[in-house]
Amino acid sequence: MNVGVIGTGAIGTDHIRRLTGRVAGARVTAVFDVDTARAATVAAMAGAASHREADDVIDDPAVEAVLVASPGDTHADLVLACIAAGKPVLCEKPLASTSDAALKVVEAEVTYGRRLVQVGFMRRYDGGYLGVKTALAAGRIGEPLLVHCVHRNVSVPPSFTGDMSLTDSLVHEVDACRWLLDQEIVAATVVDVPHSPLALPQLRDPRLVLLETERGIVIDAEVFVNARYGYDVRCEVVGTTGTVALDAPSTGVVALEGGRVQALPMDWEARFGQAYVDELQAWVDAASQGTADGPSAWDGYAATAVAEAAVASRGARTKVDLAERPGLYSGESLP
Amino acid sequence: MNVGVIGTGAIGTDHIRRLTGRVAGARVTAVFDVDTARAATVAAMAGAASHREADDVIDDPAVEAVLVASPGDTHADLVLACIAAGKPVLCEKPLASTSDAALKVVEAEVTYGRRLVQVGFMRRYDGGYLGVKTALAAGRIGEPLLVHCVHRNVSVPPSFTGDMSLTDSLVHEVDACRWLLDQEIVAATVVDVPHSPLALPQLRDPRLVLLETERGIVIDAEVFVNARYGYDVRCEVVGTTGTVALDAPSTGVVALEGGRVQALPMDWEARFGQAYVDELQAWVDAASQGTADGPSAWDGYAATAVAEAAVASRGARTKVDLAERPGLYSGESLP
Amino acid sequence: MNVGVIGTGAIGTDHIRRLTGRVAGARVTAVFDVDTARAATVAAMAGAASHREADDVIDDPAVEAVLVASPGDTHADLVLACIAAGKPVLCEKPLASTSDAALKVVEAEVTYGRRLVQVGFMRRYDGGYLGVKTALAAGRIGEPLLVHCVHRNVSVPPSFTGDMSLTDSLVHEVDACRWLLDQEIVAATVVDVPHSPLALPQLRDPRLVLLETERGIVIDAEVFVNARYGYDVRCEVVGTTGTVALDAPSTGVVALEGGRVQALPMDWEARFGQAYVDELQAWVDAASQGTADGPSAWDGYAATAVAEAAVASRGARTKVDLAERPGLYSGESLP
Amino acid sequence: MNVGVIGTGAIGTDHIRRLTGRVAGARVTAVFDVDTARAATVAAMAGAASHREADDVIDDPAVEAVLVASPGDTHADLVLACIAAGKPVLCEKPLASTSDAALKVVEAEVTYGRRLVQVGFMRRYDGGYLGVKTALAAGRIGEPLLVHCVHRNVSVPPSFTGDMSLTDSLVHEVDACRWLLDQEIVAATVVDVPHSPLALPQLRDPRLVLLETERGIVIDAEVFVNARYGYDVRCEVVGTTGTVALDAPSTGVVALEGGRVQALPMDWEARFGQAYVDELQAWVDAASQGTADGPSAWDGYAATAVAEAAVASRGARTKVDLAERPGLYSGESLP
Ligand SMILES: [Mg+2]
Ligand SMILES: [Mg+2]
Ligand SMILES: [Mg+2]
Ligand SMILES: [Mg+2]
Repeated sequence: MNVGVIGTGAIGTDHIRRLTGRVAGARVTAVFDVDTARAATVAAMAGAASHREADDVIDDPAVEAVLVASPGDTHADLVLACIAAGKPVLCEKPLASTSDAALKVVEAEVTYGRRLVQVGFMRRYDGGYLGVKTALAAGRIGEPLLVHCVHRNVSVPPSFTGDMSLTDSLVHEVDACRWLLDQEIVAATVVDVPHSPLALPQLRDPRLVLLETERGIVIDAEVFVNARYGYDVRCEVVGTTGTVALDAPSTGVVALEGGRVQALPMDWEARFGQAYVDELQAWVDAASQGTADGPSAWDGYAATAVAEAAVASRGARTKVDLAERPGLYSGESLP
Repeated sequence: MNVGVIGTGAIGTDHIRRLTGRVAGARVTAVFDVDTARAATVAAMAGAASHREADDVIDDPAVEAVLVASPGDTHADLVLACIAAGKPVLCEKPLASTSDAALKVVEAEVTYGRRLVQVGFMRRYDGGYLGVKTALAAGRIGEPLLVHCVHRNVSVPPSFTGDMSLTDSLVHEVDACRWLLDQEIVAATVVDVPHSPLALPQLRDPRLVLLETERGIVIDAEVFVNARYGYDVRCEVVGTTGTVALDAPSTGVVALEGGRVQALPMDWEARFGQAYVDELQAWVDAASQGTADGPSAWDGYAATAVAEAAVASRGARTKVDLAERPGLYSGESLP
Repeated sequence: MNVGVIGTGAIGTDHIRRLTGRVAGARVTAVFDVDTARAATVAAMAGAASHREADDVIDDPAVEAVLVASPGDTHADLVLACIAAGKPVLCEKPLASTSDAALKVVEAEVTYGRRLVQVGFMRRYDGGYLGVKTALAAGRIGEPLLVHCVHRNVSVPPSFTGDMSLTDSLVHEVDACRWLLDQEIVAATVVDVPHSPLALPQLRDPRLVLLETERGIVIDAEVFVNARYGYDVRCEVVGTTGTVALDAPSTGVVALEGGRVQALPMDWEARFGQAYVDELQAWVDAASQGTADGPSAWDGYAATAVAEAAVASRGARTKVDLAERPGLYSGESLP
Repeated sequence: MNVGVIGTGAIGTDHIRRLTGRVAGARVTAVFDVDTARAATVAAMAGAASHREADDVIDDPAVEAVLVASPGDTHADLVLACIAAGKPVLCEKPLASTSDAALKVVEAEVTYGRRLVQVGFMRRYDGGYLGVKTALAAGRIGEPLLVHCVHRNVSVPPSFTGDMSLTDSLVHEVDACRWLLDQEIVAATVVDVPHSPLALPQLRDPRLVLLETERGIVIDAEVFVNARYGYDVRCEVVGTTGTVALDAPSTGVVALEGGRVQALPMDWEARFGQAYVDELQAWVDAASQGTADGPSAWDGYAATAVAEAAVASRGARTKVDLAERPGLYSGESLP
């Protein structure tokens, strides 16, 4: 399948490398980036054409499917263009900058009548999360009641500001919990906590967020993007008869002076690198059938809507005002 | 040191067995229980006298220190009588049924002028908690920002009702966090969560509670007294540069069909049995010097006050209205 | 790259599925199996031709590289034919049934003058083993002195008999240790141990084997192919200043009655599935350049020679009589 | 019970501190050490008399039981004197410098007709080992087939020389395995391995030892007394249907840059401190009844005999030539 890639920054280039060298059935044939020099270099590396405009990638008759990895505020329009062109698209999260914009994508896809959009929530492809999902589905812990989440990064670049720990980081917990629990999140509360003096003040880092699902399950999620010591993602679902927790992959236990050390990854590439490959493989498999699988436009919309409610909450429980879910998205998960 | 024990139920008898067979420098010479037959049996076992009234134990001239393990609503008056008699006393938690009653104990002890009271918060003597305390004191994680607590019991007896998961269970987290962080808890919020159908409805089990310290650190604590699968106590303190977590003792890892199993204790006796012994040893050591060490009457008062705020909160952040701490309690911890 | 596959049993079919659906840059275009019906079915599934003879696959002008997954006693001749045809070949272990036969492959490849052969020791591609390798290379444990290995299977089929726990199972430890330590194994001793009554008597299961490297490092390896409880592979290298141990991937920790359970895989597919994919990708990448990477014919020869010494040892230390290593194999590892 | 202590070096003083401050029912009333100044200081600390000769402690009519913590070559004679005096004695390991001398103690006790001797194998009182014992007794792993042991110290003092890693360290594994498996060890082989350049050459450190029980179970034991990184004791028993492994206690898991660190103890005091207390309590409990419990003179003899065989083995399997076990020792364990 011929893939066009829009956005050849770090993430886009990583995706191109995976599509080219780790995924079956895909070839990158066209790219675009506002940084035309960068685009040309990456295009040469991949043996692809470098186009003048993002839309040229989508309109390129040789391109059968599109991967969108440009800045977040360009996502919605590009995905709409893909839908208009009838081409499957993998859109990095977020699907859109606002839930309104995301909802427009949902509506366009519903009008189109078939799924074309997959959103880049790669955790659904991680072995650890899949193990939790399997345990839940098998009823091993009875009925879920609570979820405890932790999402810690070593640090963030200066461009990571404002409420991005909600709109860019927490959304992973939002999607993972919606998927694990098979239900919508209907309310969000950001709890006021002390902020690390090692983080920029405007980040108000860490954040502690309470999320509430349609059946009342409460999720507490710590998002700490300057945790310094490592990239650490945890998730424990507490049920009526037991609990199940995400188990992180590791690459060896070293016993050295002081104790037994289990190495932690320092970034998401180390932690979720394989999940990205598997995400792309699943996308290529579905897209080459003209459709999409995995996290949908609806999932992208819901995650954005929950993050918006969290941003708005400022300490008070805030309802998530979701649209009614179209039948197109009633398939594999969520009733 | 001759010890008198008031209350020879399960906990009192366990304490007598430890004082007699596991602790240096103590002898149980007098006991009382409202169940006189039970008291007589236990007295015979310990080689102690069985008295007619609780006060007779306190007034017994041979008794040098008193252990109070009777029902919680009798604690405050008994401890007051011990102070009046100038005898060191170990009082099982809670120190009193209400913070007002607990404050009276504090005031009496302040008037007496020297510490005589130790409250039975045994976790301060647990090797795991001591390890966390040591790591914090050594600055290994920088400045504490957040604490995540879990407190799960297999199940509770029918007598465990109403808000006891706050007044009897959560108080352990309250005391442990005050001690670990060296600061008061000034607000409490019970978050509404779904309740397990396997627990009695009036318990509203599990509970999720947010606690806030005087310096703004937020503690989220899950208390789940019908968790079914085991007795599981966890605590992770998140700091600016790392985290430290309680590591549970274990008694062997068995690899059996399905996986590697790390045995969990099924009750607090299995988990904290050694902590109880060490608590008693510390008490005997201090009491034989005519004073008290470890958790103080003030600690008992503060824990009760926080639990009261939690009970009152019903979903809204509720301030803990603490008295001013007397100088008597300004010693080893808390400024 | 067009791949021909010889042998479409379970392992061959798994490899075809991976080449087709999980690996970049490969297509299966020809297959052969003695079971012609099976071969036809698999060929249809993969969109490949089904040939009458194994040699027809090798000789097929469209086939650019060959994967050999037929029974072990056919391997050496097929690999020799691939070398004669100048085609890169991935040969499932063992490279040959005897070290003499394996040495003939080595000699043929040396005569050919360039590496064409990769042997299927997939553990070299496992994230856990790679972590151990990295720690060793970084000198984190000082100089290696001892290695403790465990290799346990749930059970084996009736066709797994005689000394196969040495020739088919232990060879994985042999290759992994040679690779981790960068040195040859020069002696082997099978220690007499009690055998499980739950295994067929002729398997003498478990086995305990002592291996000795050219620099004197001793490896103790337990191979237990009827361990019942799970598929469990462990490896700890003990150095002068620390140790490093393989850390198994997991898919979730479940807390259930009795304890905290870390799921164990039940077979090698679950444990090393990703390693197989990465092995194939590495092979395709090198083969499409007309050469081979990873475990070489020499590695296959050495592993077979060590297993032979172990079989011959019957309790007495037995030297491994290795040929001199040709310069062709002096590249990336082993001096 | 009045205890006399012979030997007030580091271990003797630790025991006195425990007897005085952590154990119920004991008082140290007399001490002896060849270093009379040291003895006087310790005696003053404990409120005990300081005697001129070791025998004076044993003969002191106020002394009801004796603890022997003097150098190993004095143990046998002192224990014989205790038996002659009819006084219970706790003898630090080894019971004697040679198995012949140890056998004389056994014979003297048999002649006396009742157990008076307990040998200081404290691991039998460790919660971790007790957990393994419980799992084995419950049949959780089927029938034991193999045992893997590791015994690592950070370093040893210059006085630790020659074969002491066999006679002083390995004996703990010998006793623990005899006790866990309920059977004698009948053969020992020291395997030649590379020695750490960081240890004194004459120590030939680490050692790898194979032990064989009367029913053929094989134990491989690594003893490494200059392992540098920590004090690390491990034991895994492999059975027909599962395995059980010792789980080390910990005092907190710290997540810091680089990974999750589980603290390791740096010496046996940190690892087995509680086991020593429990050992002493068990001894006091039995001695105050005029008898002994726990590891017997026979156990001390057997451990010494196995260590002797190991020392003699020099790479060849060497039989342990055990005397016939007297009926006195047929009680709780070993048939
Ligand atoms: Mg993503
Ligand atoms: Mg208590
Ligand atoms: Mg293989
Ligand atoms: Mg000892």
